[in-house]
Amino acid sequence: MEETKDFQPTCPMPFKQYPKILLSHGGGGTLMHQLIEDMFLASFGNSIINARDDAAVLEGLSSRIAYTTDSYVVQPIFFPGGDIGSLAVNGTVNDLAMSGARPLFLTAGFILEEGLDMEVLWRVVKSMTRAAKKAGVSIVAGDTKVVDKGKGDGIYINTSGIGFIEHDQRISPRMVQNGDVLILSGDIGRHGIAVMAIREGLEFESDIKSDCAPLVHMVADMIAGGIELHCMRDLTRGGLAGALNEIAENSQKAIHIDQCSIPVQDDVSAACEMLGFDPLYVANEGKFIAFVPEKDARHAVNILKQHPQGREASIIGEVKDRDKGIVTMKTRIGTTRIVGMLSGEQLPRIC
Amino acid sequence: MEETKDFQPTCPMPFKQYPKILLSHGGGGTLMHQLIEDMFLASFGNSIINARDDAAVLEGLSSRIAYTTDSYVVQPIFFPGGDIGSLAVNGTVNDLAMSGARPLFLTAGFILEEGLDMEVLWRVVKSMTRAAKKAGVSIVAGDTKVVDKGKGDGIYINTSGIGFIEHDQRISPRMVQNGDVLILSGDIGRHGIAVMAIREGLEFESDIKSDCAPLVHMVADMIAGGIELHCMRDLTRGGLAGALNEIAENSQKAIHIDQCSIPVQDDVSAACEMLGFDPLYVANEGKFIAFVPEKDARHAVNILKQHPQGREASIIGEVKDRDKGIVTMKTRIGTTRIVGMLSGEQLPRIC
Repeated sequence: MEETKDFQPTCPMPFKQYPKILLSHGGGGTLMHQLIEDMFLASFGNSIINARDDAAVLEGLSSRIAYTTDSYVVQPIFFPGGDIGSLAVNGTVNDLAMSGARPLFLTAGFILEEGLDMEVLWRVVKSMTRAAKKAGVSIVAGDTKVVDKGKGDGIYINTSGIGFIEHDQRISPRMVQNGDVLILSGDIGRHGIAVMAIREGLEFESDIKSDCAPLVHMVADMIAGGIELHCMRDLTRGGLAGALNEIAENSQKAIHIDQCSIPVQDDVSAACEMLGFDPLYVANEGKFIAFVPEKDARHAVNILKQHPQGREASIIGEVKDRDKGIVTMKTRIGTTRIVGMLSGEQLPRIC
Repeated sequence: MEETKDFQPTCPMPFKQYPKILLSHGGGGTLMHQLIEDMFLASFGNSIINARDDAAVLEGLSSRIAYTTDSYVVQPIFFPGGDIGSLAVNGTVNDLAMSGARPLFLTAGFILEEGLDMEVLWRVVKSMTRAAKKAGVSIVAGDTKVVDKGKGDGIYINTSGIGFIEHDQRISPRMVQNGDVLILSGDIGRHGIAVMAIREGLEFESDIKSDCAPLVHMVADMIAGGIELHCMRDLTRGGLAGALNEIAENSQKAIHIDQCSIPVQDDVSAACEMLGFDPLYVANEGKFIAFVPEKDARHAVNILKQHPQGREASIIGEVKDRDKGIVTMKTRIGTTRIVGMLSGEQLPRIC
């Protein structure tokens, strides 16, 4: 697995003395100080966070920025293709990318459960460091809280992020137009099924890996390539169906997709069938949908196909001038059905 | 209590059907959608968050901003003088204010435990709304996760914040100078003791209320008043002693304070004695320390005294040109002792 290639197997020395997280690691005293200095700053270190101020001071900003936050509570902490650390970086980076911003700065807030293995925290921090480097962002501020044993689940992470918007496009559900073409950046359903498989101890014929990855480079290339982007959304909780329903509602447009054009890996498809899931609703962590005018659709797909994560990019539907706020799908057998929003969730704690 | 003055006692209608938080409220489906629309957007609503984009788009920024994050895990959720909601707003607003910024935008990430009373969430959200208004900030992006019963403690909140820096001062431990005067904005120890008292079911002769409040207006007035601010720090986890030790270490200066000049309310002092706490280490949520050149010290104190939270502002010490990185204190009985950093924590989960 790529994630483990440069994996440092052991914590640095100061932590040998405390192999588990104690309440004192969040108490504002010397143990917390040591954790911040020798784990977080030693890993995330950059000139901004190293200043150790209450707030990071950012200079020379563009006048238009994107700003977002997400908390991550995925269970288990490590899963095929990623972990809570890479997820916490990529998830927030991707939310910024979806507004057409270049992600630049992240904050990281840790809620640790008393008794957590220091080694686990170390692996997560290293994974965040690698993911941040890959996405081109710096972690510039952070916070650590420790809660009593039984009041958490090992580790929860919140990240917030800031990105610069360096173009004049307005990218939002409100910009969706009749006739827009929907481009899906790749196959769906891998993240949710990868997490579910390991959680339930299910054995599939092949190892399904999460698609957890930063989308920022694909988006940057589309913007640089002159693609007119009306709306983008990454396909996390609620999956493709959830994202399309939100866009349909917020834009008050009718979205129509074609099931045959939506790529799903065979093993993901088989796992979904076995578990009774519809891949349309399963979460992804490295896939997005883009609404572009028809004139740009082919060009956009070609740009995406040049990226490893975009090789299966395809046109999957269009925006129609009829039943507003509704998502419809032409099924494999040729019928048309409404794709609604699920009331509950298929898979709890997958991000 | 001021916090309850405009308290709306009941949730809006849609929540009657679901009096408790379900895992589905975090699942990306219709229940989560309802929670976002009818609770969070209905309360926090502003043109930026109402756009419902993956990231908030902020326009017309200054070229220098402050950026920070904190998670809040205080237990109990409601305490005399505040709650986790007002704390989550004021704590982050105050971190921004300490860098001399004017706080403007917050994000809010909720980690809710399955089974949480919807009414409790509603009260917290209302409290955040009031606190944000008071501090002059808008909540522009948010996220909600629900974790299984027994994997949380009702409600954890992360907030991140952005503020504009609209002056040319550099405010940081690195700017501390020999001869600087230390100004404390008021009496210490109230927040930690207020939380501890209710948690332990202790009855004191008088009700000790948390000092939870935004510091932004005091800081703005000092900047407008031309005060040269070298360093500021709010006195949260680790208390006054923790903050001074951090500043001493990061500035490599010697800090000397006078115990007699540090205001502590009689009831706080009595409670500390009873519980075996030193108020120097007890957390505050509406107090800060400022390092200013001697020429500005009197003027700064006078500015602070004009604010309800600053009535007891006083000069409590100075920066000396000797034992670098050390905090010393002249005690009530006239001796001098080193004020170290605690290794653990006096009070777990007070913020």
